[in-house]
Amino acid sequence: MPILCRPAVAVPEHVITQEQTLELARRTHADHPQLKLVLRLITNTGVRTRHLVRPIEETLTHPGFEVRNRRYEAEAKERVPAVVRRALAHAGVEPPDIDMIVYVSCTGFMMPSLTAWMINTMGFRPDTRQLPIAQLGCAAGGAAVSRAHDFCTAYPTANVLIVSCEFCSLLYQPADLGVGSLLSNGLFGDALSAAVVRGTGGTGMRLERNASHLVPDTESWISYAVRETGFHFLLDKRVPGTMRMLAPALRSLTADHGWEADGLDFLIVHAGGPRILDDLCHYLEVDDHLFRFSRATLTERGNIASSVVFDALDRFFAAGGTHQDAPGLLAGFGPGITAEMVLGRWTAAPAITPQRGAPPATAAHPNGSRGLTAP
Amino acid sequence: MPILCRPAVAVPEHVITQEQTLELARRTHADHPQLKLVLRLITNTGVRTRHLVRPIEETLTHPGFEVRNRRYEAEAKERVPAVVRRALAHAGVEPPDIDMIVYVSCTGFMMPSLTAWMINTMGFRPDTRQLPIAQLGCAAGGAAVSRAHDFCTAYPTANVLIVSCEFCSLLYQPADLGVGSLLSNGLFGDALSAAVVRGTGGTGMRLERNASHLVPDTESWISYAVRETGFHFLLDKRVPGTMRMLAPALRSLTADHGWEADGLDFLIVHAGGPRILDDLCHYLEVDDHLFRFSRATLTERGNIASSVVFDALDRFFAAGGTHQDAPGLLAGFGPGITAEMVLGRWTAAPAITPQRGAPPATAAHPNGSRGLTAP
Repeated sequence: MPILCRPAVAVPEHVITQEQTLELARRTHADHPQLKLVLRLITNTGVRTRHLVRPIEETLTHPGFEVRNRRYEAEAKERVPAVVRRALAHAGVEPPDIDMIVYVSCTGFMMPSLTAWMINTMGFRPDTRQLPIAQLGCAAGGAAVSRAHDFCTAYPTANVLIVSCEFCSLLYQPADLGVGSLLSNGLFGDALSAAVVRGTGGTGMRLERNASHLVPDTESWISYAVRETGFHFLLDKRVPGTMRMLAPALRSLTADHGWEADGLDFLIVHAGGPRILDDLCHYLEVDDHLFRFSRATLTERGNIASSVVFDALDRFFAAGGTHQDAPGLLAGFGPGITAEMVLGRWTAAPAITPQRGAPPATAAHPNGSRGLTAP
Repeated sequence: MPILCRPAVAVPEHVITQEQTLELARRTHADHPQLKLVLRLITNTGVRTRHLVRPIEETLTHPGFEVRNRRYEAEAKERVPAVVRRALAHAGVEPPDIDMIVYVSCTGFMMPSLTAWMINTMGFRPDTRQLPIAQLGCAAGGAAVSRAHDFCTAYPTANVLIVSCEFCSLLYQPADLGVGSLLSNGLFGDALSAAVVRGTGGTGMRLERNASHLVPDTESWISYAVRETGFHFLLDKRVPGTMRMLAPALRSLTADHGWEADGLDFLIVHAGGPRILDDLCHYLEVDDHLFRFSRATLTERGNIASSVVFDALDRFFAAGGTHQDAPGLLAGFGPGITAEMVLGRWTAAPAITPQRGAPPATAAHPNGSRGLTAP
């Protein structure tokens, strides 16, 4: 069964604290009629620090969509390789062992995507599948794990590399003055992460079932307006309350799998904001302690979009994981409103590791040279 | 085994002929130092007619990226449902039977993607997986079939809907005067298409193996520059010659599967331009007759990006397909430079059709309510 191995995470070197964020908001929006509300909302996020790819002074300027997007590309090329190498090392695989790269990012747009550059420069095979996803926003972390899970279910000896690269600060829009925009300016942070899903072998979260759920008629609640100035993030004030609608989907997924929500041993969920975690705790009737990894991500790094689940998962690994076979859930939430959910069990003991070049005769591998075509 | 059923294709009502294209180029670029070359290149494409979502006069203006992208969204919402309904009817399935929607489009950007709107308005289940792909360009048609193939390999009773929506005319950039840009203005057309991959049952192309191949160090040959004015399509003059580099990957894929390239009975390939087809014919040493469907797409509709393979496949179905179990290849080519290839056999006789609500006990379905979790 596919195993999601320990992620690697990196945050950029420029740091902004909540105090600095509040001070900036006070100075920049002194005449804003809802300044008090904005300051209260930012304070309530509980985000203490965030990291930025560029110094704050530069972040606050808008040099145009073209320059912004070039910066995205340059920073991604500068920062992605090291994170990827660490994730490969965690999983005990090398670039040529990877059969598919799922690259998720909603904060820059490239065609070809960064996957082509990675294959050309990092030693991945030319026949590595490329799956770039730009339109699932914060839910893309969960979706990436699910698609990697599916791929390894189809080809049980395959390995999938997931890369999440989110430079949210490059989407700062100085002219957007709605409360949702000003709150977002104090909530989102930059980070990048990577993780390998191994079809066979490895230790970590053994993936057993995945599912998606779309909350009907909430398309406009989290969305991008695409303009000459780039992507404008629109956040509806109803978003913090969406766990009331998504918690039943999480419950139903666990029930389909014969599990109980309150029997989950670990929960790695997207920390979009503090109320997401509080409400999930309430509606799932689980201990708040289960959300400590997601909450730490939110507090120390802000909402880092599709990287949240990998950062929280990395903290879970760093804390030593849990007992063998304990059941857990990983979930991303994002535009749609959509939840991308995966159930699995903690696996500290490695399964039988496949020998390079000699896959088990019964196993399937996506590439002809390493095995059969399908189970 | 998964079967790619008959696609549905639609082209918009506004038509431009090659004569009109040439006349426009002469008039618009009368002083262009390479006008003669451009006219010859456009003539050589062999594209006789193309379809546009908006009248030509409107197409030639640039109202700004925001308006363009809104137009993309409005036209997609206007035109996608009918094509999807026809594709579902071809496959004998209803919206609630679909487990995943793969939406490929490189000519507009939406977040959430059109998949969310489709689920909300067309009767798809809220737990339908969404896989929007915007960054694989013309290769995305082949990639969509491959990912659907993988998904149905993982969950043998699943059904995947593929939607390709390409309004290339909305990427017209009047200020781009390079030869590659002017040629592209005379080559690309608008179209949309959809097709269902059924895990069980159906008739069409039975999918057996898929693969990707990236030609090293050709990232810049087909790419988008992202600017305030939107996506600028950049086409290197070396692109028409890429089949010399990709044909070996097609050969190697067929060999891995125990087939011979010259034993292929049908070839459904991306018709990026006439030389792609001529060269492929040469390097694969196959009969030019095999490319008649792709060539007809190019001649009558131009390069319709990720929809080419579905339009050509639809022509193959319309011609009656071929004999039972005849081997064939479907391949998209695009930025990277990447080939996304799928091997399969023609299947006119339906396999055992699953009964609704009663999947075979041994089959796996991605959703708990309809079966197990994995094979």
